[in-house]
Amino acid sequence: MNDKTKTIRDPIHGDIKLEGLFLELIEAPEIQRLYHIKQLGFAHLVFPGAHHTRFEHSLGAYYVASRAAETLNLDKEEKEIITCASMLHDIGHGPFSHTLEFILRNTLNVDHVDLTEKLILGKYDIFDPEEKEYIGSSSVNDILNKNGIDQKEIIRNIRGKTNKKPYLSQLLNSSIDVDQLDYLVRDAYYTGVAYGLIDTERFLQTLTINNNKLAVIKKGVGAVENILMARTLMYSSVYFHKTVRIAELMLSKAFEMIDNLEPFNFFKMTDAELINNLKKMGTYQYEIATRLKYRKLFKQVYAVSRSNLDEAKINAVKSLEDMNFRRKKEQELEESLNIPSGHVIIDVPFQELHQAEPRIDQTDIAIVDDRSTKNLDEYTPIAKAIRLRPIPDWIVMIIADEKYRDLIAGKAEKILFG
Amino acid sequence: MNDKTKTIRDPIHGDIKLEGLFLELIEAPEIQRLYHIKQLGFAHLVFPGAHHTRFEHSLGAYYVASRAAETLNLDKEEKEIITCASMLHDIGHGPFSHTLEFILRNTLNVDHVDLTEKLILGKYDIFDPEEKEYIGSSSVNDILNKNGIDQKEIIRNIRGKTNKKPYLSQLLNSSIDVDQLDYLVRDAYYTGVAYGLIDTERFLQTLTINNNKLAVIKKGVGAVENILMARTLMYSSVYFHKTVRIAELMLSKAFEMIDNLEPFNFFKMTDAELINNLKKMGTYQYEIATRLKYRKLFKQVYAVSRSNLDEAKINAVKSLEDMNFRRKKEQELEESLNIPSGHVIIDVPFQELHQAEPRIDQTDIAIVDDRSTKNLDEYTPIAKAIRLRPIPDWIVMIIADEKYRDLIAGKAEKILFG
Amino acid sequence: MNDKTKTIRDPIHGDIKLEGLFLELIEAPEIQRLYHIKQLGFAHLVFPGAHHTRFEHSLGAYYVASRAAETLNLDKEEKEIITCASMLHDIGHGPFSHTLEFILRNTLNVDHVDLTEKLILGKYDIFDPEEKEYIGSSSVNDILNKNGIDQKEIIRNIRGKTNKKPYLSQLLNSSIDVDQLDYLVRDAYYTGVAYGLIDTERFLQTLTINNNKLAVIKKGVGAVENILMARTLMYSSVYFHKTVRIAELMLSKAFEMIDNLEPFNFFKMTDAELINNLKKMGTYQYEIATRLKYRKLFKQVYAVSRSNLDEAKINAVKSLEDMNFRRKKEQELEESLNIPSGHVIIDVPFQELHQAEPRIDQTDIAIVDDRSTKNLDEYTPIAKAIRLRPIPDWIVMIIADEKYRDLIAGKAEKILFG
Amino acid sequence: MNDKTKTIRDPIHGDIKLEGLFLELIEAPEIQRLYHIKQLGFAHLVFPGAHHTRFEHSLGAYYVASRAAETLNLDKEEKEIITCASMLHDIGHGPFSHTLEFILRNTLNVDHVDLTEKLILGKYDIFDPEEKEYIGSSSVNDILNKNGIDQKEIIRNIRGKTNKKPYLSQLLNSSIDVDQLDYLVRDAYYTGVAYGLIDTERFLQTLTINNNKLAVIKKGVGAVENILMARTLMYSSVYFHKTVRIAELMLSKAFEMIDNLEPFNFFKMTDAELINNLKKMGTYQYEIATRLKYRKLFKQVYAVSRSNLDEAKINAVKSLEDMNFRRKKEQELEESLNIPSGHVIIDVPFQELHQAEPRIDQTDIAIVDDRSTKNLDEYTPIAKAIRLRPIPDWIVMIIADEKYRDLIAGKAEKILFG
Repeated sequence: MNDKTKTIRDPIHGDIKLEGLFLELIEAPEIQRLYHIKQLGFAHLVFPGAHHTRFEHSLGAYYVASRAAETLNLDKEEKEIITCASMLHDIGHGPFSHTLEFILRNTLNVDHVDLTEKLILGKYDIFDPEEKEYIGSSSVNDILNKNGIDQKEIIRNIRGKTNKKPYLSQLLNSSIDVDQLDYLVRDAYYTGVAYGLIDTERFLQTLTINNNKLAVIKKGVGAVENILMARTLMYSSVYFHKTVRIAELMLSKAFEMIDNLEPFNFFKMTDAELINNLKKMGTYQYEIATRLKYRKLFKQVYAVSRSNLDEAKINAVKSLEDMNFRRKKEQELEESLNIPSGHVIIDVPFQELHQAEPRIDQTDIAIVDDRSTKNLDEYTPIAKAIRLRPIPDWIVMIIADEKYRDLIAGKAEKILFG
Repeated sequence: MNDKTKTIRDPIHGDIKLEGLFLELIEAPEIQRLYHIKQLGFAHLVFPGAHHTRFEHSLGAYYVASRAAETLNLDKEEKEIITCASMLHDIGHGPFSHTLEFILRNTLNVDHVDLTEKLILGKYDIFDPEEKEYIGSSSVNDILNKNGIDQKEIIRNIRGKTNKKPYLSQLLNSSIDVDQLDYLVRDAYYTGVAYGLIDTERFLQTLTINNNKLAVIKKGVGAVENILMARTLMYSSVYFHKTVRIAELMLSKAFEMIDNLEPFNFFKMTDAELINNLKKMGTYQYEIATRLKYRKLFKQVYAVSRSNLDEAKINAVKSLEDMNFRRKKEQELEESLNIPSGHVIIDVPFQELHQAEPRIDQTDIAIVDDRSTKNLDEYTPIAKAIRLRPIPDWIVMIIADEKYRDLIAGKAEKILFG
Repeated sequence: MNDKTKTIRDPIHGDIKLEGLFLELIEAPEIQRLYHIKQLGFAHLVFPGAHHTRFEHSLGAYYVASRAAETLNLDKEEKEIITCASMLHDIGHGPFSHTLEFILRNTLNVDHVDLTEKLILGKYDIFDPEEKEYIGSSSVNDILNKNGIDQKEIIRNIRGKTNKKPYLSQLLNSSIDVDQLDYLVRDAYYTGVAYGLIDTERFLQTLTINNNKLAVIKKGVGAVENILMARTLMYSSVYFHKTVRIAELMLSKAFEMIDNLEPFNFFKMTDAELINNLKKMGTYQYEIATRLKYRKLFKQVYAVSRSNLDEAKINAVKSLEDMNFRRKKEQELEESLNIPSGHVIIDVPFQELHQAEPRIDQTDIAIVDDRSTKNLDEYTPIAKAIRLRPIPDWIVMIIADEKYRDLIAGKAEKILFG
Repeated sequence: MNDKTKTIRDPIHGDIKLEGLFLELIEAPEIQRLYHIKQLGFAHLVFPGAHHTRFEHSLGAYYVASRAAETLNLDKEEKEIITCASMLHDIGHGPFSHTLEFILRNTLNVDHVDLTEKLILGKYDIFDPEEKEYIGSSSVNDILNKNGIDQKEIIRNIRGKTNKKPYLSQLLNSSIDVDQLDYLVRDAYYTGVAYGLIDTERFLQTLTINNNKLAVIKKGVGAVENILMARTLMYSSVYFHKTVRIAELMLSKAFEMIDNLEPFNFFKMTDAELINNLKKMGTYQYEIATRLKYRKLFKQVYAVSRSNLDEAKINAVKSLEDMNFRRKKEQELEESLNIPSGHVIIDVPFQELHQAEPRIDQTDIAIVDDRSTKNLDEYTPIAKAIRLRPIPDWIVMIIADEKYRDLIAGKAEKILFG
């Protein structure tokens, strides 16, 4: 079976060829499960084309990594490591991708990268026990073992911690990496929002290795500016679109309010399995699942942007970043206004945005020319502007059913800012 | 609410504006449910981008209908009827679109158009009773009543039976109609198979009304040939791709083998709800659902194409079109080879292909020039060739787990053709 | 200089890398001249985007050839021959590509391939003598000599006559070849007529070598049908579009009517140089050049299609294929109607279409599966239909200034068919 | 003829419909001449696809203007003015678009807008007198007169000086206008450089009129940032690409060095006519025309960027903006190094960049929300960064034949900066 080749048609990158190790990996249950995890959570509720999944993205990241390995002339072993890491980097994602991740972080201090690590090392099993009877597939860990792949090195790559060859882990973890190079174009294609349509090929051809680190040659500055701009625009227009965010907050709340929640039980589920289970967890969960199914969403009933706030208020917002404090404030609002529990949600997006995408305001890219290596900032004022650009346009918002709009609007200021 | 406008970004047609009636319809539960019905059933198992749903297609069909109404200069009322019919034409689809439809047909002599009719007339309710407590949305029937839309006329349009104005129902039901004009491009986009990328605009501009019927002016012959060719190529490459068909046959079999099946209970479900329910219906159903989840599919273990068969054998295939007879043959194979029940499936695709797409070999398009109205065949030999073109390339195949390949291959001929 | 690499951005194929021999060839004057020869003659008068040139096409044919060489695993030497032949195959084209070629054929029995051969062998010089003082560039012949390339083999390849390795010359000369694979997509892109948007990659991946000849594996039949259909549609919609043809006939006539014409003097010119020279050749030539500049074209004042003719008339049309006889008939019309010389042009396109594109009704492609090699016709009725499809829709037409329409229309029948 | 409709296929905007006034204008000689003026001068020498012309752009600007008029709900008369002005705004362009414009400015204090004005008012004739005998077409001025169009208003629109309705002239003359909305996408398409692929539709839908001026609603900020970024990237990557600039400087020099130059004689020519005439104007002109034909370009033999210069040197560069002083310095270099006249060219691009595109660092766009109208800078730091972004990356360069590189490099510093 190993000498076979398989060609998969991807609307983004065209035909992607797989053989050997990668043909085995693509059939592993951890990768197949990603067929059922939407890449953009609930973005399809605003952009109806956005049903694409982590499966396509994993395949795409693998492809971009293999193209980068070619243009950088990496050796066979390096290429194997970086393409393998790229294909596996998202297998630890729970249902709806990033949506529920902050709960894992808050309750167990764990994130999807930790789960990815466990799966690679074979310390965690993606199957329901019953499923195993019918599916004889080898796990990712089995396949890596069989093919003699250094699992620790794969994990270091995914975590951006390859000490000896920084350029290798930078390929998957830096201001511009293969993960972004795939998702920006892919998300642009499926949402129909053209901002993300970057020119991957042009960028890859200006990529180089300098003092063991990734760098871009001078004539690639335009390509870099274009990608950074694409990223910031996709964040404000799509990933943190108000309505998408509202749907995600509703799901999170329903999840968080499960009695005796053990988050780990849910993280191997698919999107659909989670929703199906949620429905059985209580009337509030049933309500939210039904609202999401038929797109009867809460609305933004109150919002303020950063520029409208003085320092005292900004500090008040900062304290809301503590989940427990935020929950207390939500309860205060609910109780004082006689709104049933779970029906007022406060959003303070800053922290979560930066956990979901730590690269959001990273622009530290080395630019090399004949004589020197300088930071991108030396060549263009765009990089700094991107770091300062506000995403999203609210610093705090309250969401609730439309019918509570006036009630809450009247009280919000007082409860949030005292 | 009626004076609002909403713009939805569609990757295929760009910005689609909705207002009034259509803004209400798009929020009806029958349309929202289509968010959860994949347009192409299991095509994503071969074309990983193909996760798009009947929701986008309904929106797209609405849009193409409104463009056609403009280029044909239809009056306000006609435009309302045809756009409304186009938006609603698929609301009766069960989970996984066409996949399970032949069972409805065989057991209850009913198809998705009959269900669409019931929903439009308010004779059927899409909600689970429990859901209704949380979702106050008006049904399609409520909205049509409120807006004074003639429901019988909508249904006649969907069924292609508008007696007074044949061109109106032809717009949604003829050799080339708005349904196809949307799905060909949409499916091409999401699968990445370029065959379907037709030039809708060019076609619409050659469309005209002649003696109360749709016709195409002579210089549109090329556009017509292109669309007919696109359709036949999409059928052989995507819709009846061998592996896609295998997944669909597996699901159908699992569904059909449910004890005391009452198909109507399942037809209001979403894709995910069906799969979830299936898992609880028995070990065979659980096995199939799990195989589909992880893409552990049956294989084609035996197949013959039409050109390899003499008349006697062709007749033998014909008799296999009777579902009961086919099931008997499957059992014979299973019993004689000691294969567990449900693990041998015989496919005779001809009939089902023609039920799923009755337009598959329709090419009767009127071409008008200054002097005459003639059939497309008078202008090009391509039309006839398309009618004769075989889809798919097997006339009968047997699918089963790979491990039974040799067993079955040795016995198939004898059992199928005596 | 030889160890440099140059990347050229092509809107069709993306970045095209050139090095060594090919970097030298691209800078040769014979290739650079192609920058000034429009790929589609006067098609921009109907499709305003169609200003692309033989230069881009030569680069594109080179690129597709190199992709084909990769997917077929050709060895280094074979790859060099086929990519080199592909880059050079059009250097013999005169101004406005095919437009004036039939005059060369009729007067000197020579075509653009003969000129290409002369240039490759160094028997002809593309420069004006004066130009040579300023441009020191090596000619194609110099470069081939310097790099030790077998010129005879290149020419055999271009002529489709590689005896030992038929697959090599088939790559550049057969029912589907790299020439077409480039021009169909390129012409579709610049005209905006989507018919030509074929899926080159999909086709190349089903291409194989069978008994020393090119063949396509069975699952490529759809890709083949799609390309053949694209070709026939581009011919009827673009290349033989009525108005494009009219502009070409006007130029040809002006050229042909030059006193003491020595066609060879003109064939090394660029499009612009020809037009500029034409203006000095007489008042008729000046008139036509001015009409073409400002798009004041003759009109089709009379036309018949094949289906309207009985056998006697078809024979009458056949005799018009003789240029001298056709010219006599034009004179008859002019004299009897008192129209100045050169202002009535009769077009009988059949012969010229087949000289410009000998592949127009070729569909003989070998299809291989596990067991057999069969002709495409065994798999699909589309191939034959394409051979029978009429292009263009007139079998004979007369063009002239609009003001002569009624005059000519009244007399045409009699003079053409007696 | 006036009741006809004509549909033109544009690869960028699809089918563009013309009727009445616009059908007449498109056939006027001033517009038809634009078929022969390349949109991007010599950009095709770097981006081989870039042969598109001012004709397509004029058609495209007309189309975008008509779309903007629709989304802004302009009345019939306003729409006629703005679409008419958009179609005509470039008719005064000389050969090779902006390339030679600075000579007009320097010698006659006139630019292409002044010529456009003369043509609209009928004070200038595009025809060669001889041509007129054969072409009876009405001029733009005739057509405007016949249709009763207010020519002064058209000119005010083109010049951005409509006092009563500032929004009208802003549509064709402001930080983001229909001119840019067409050329960014068009140039991106034909060069293959994706940076310009902006989302015109999205932008138009956020455009509004506020206090008689154009403004953008708040949710359009992202679309605006995207367009401004696209513009700056297209300038640095394409329009001021080093090699494109070199070819333009060579042509300008050859033009400028014509004995007893009377620039006006040349400005009605097409690109090809200019080149053809140039060849007859002297050996230097012949050399340059031949070099451009075969792409034997001068090279950048010396360059400095702004960041490398102290204030004294920046002042030295400033004085080089005076054309006469610059020419003196070129002569000094030529004479001291024994280089023939015209073979050393100094480029100081700043001034010319700002004359060719006065909008290059304009970002003053009004953003409106429910409560206020603010400048774009209040919402994003990107606008200011774009104003500060350096284009191109040299502040002064010297170009010459490669063989003089070392000679000039050794002397440049001294002569330029004393």
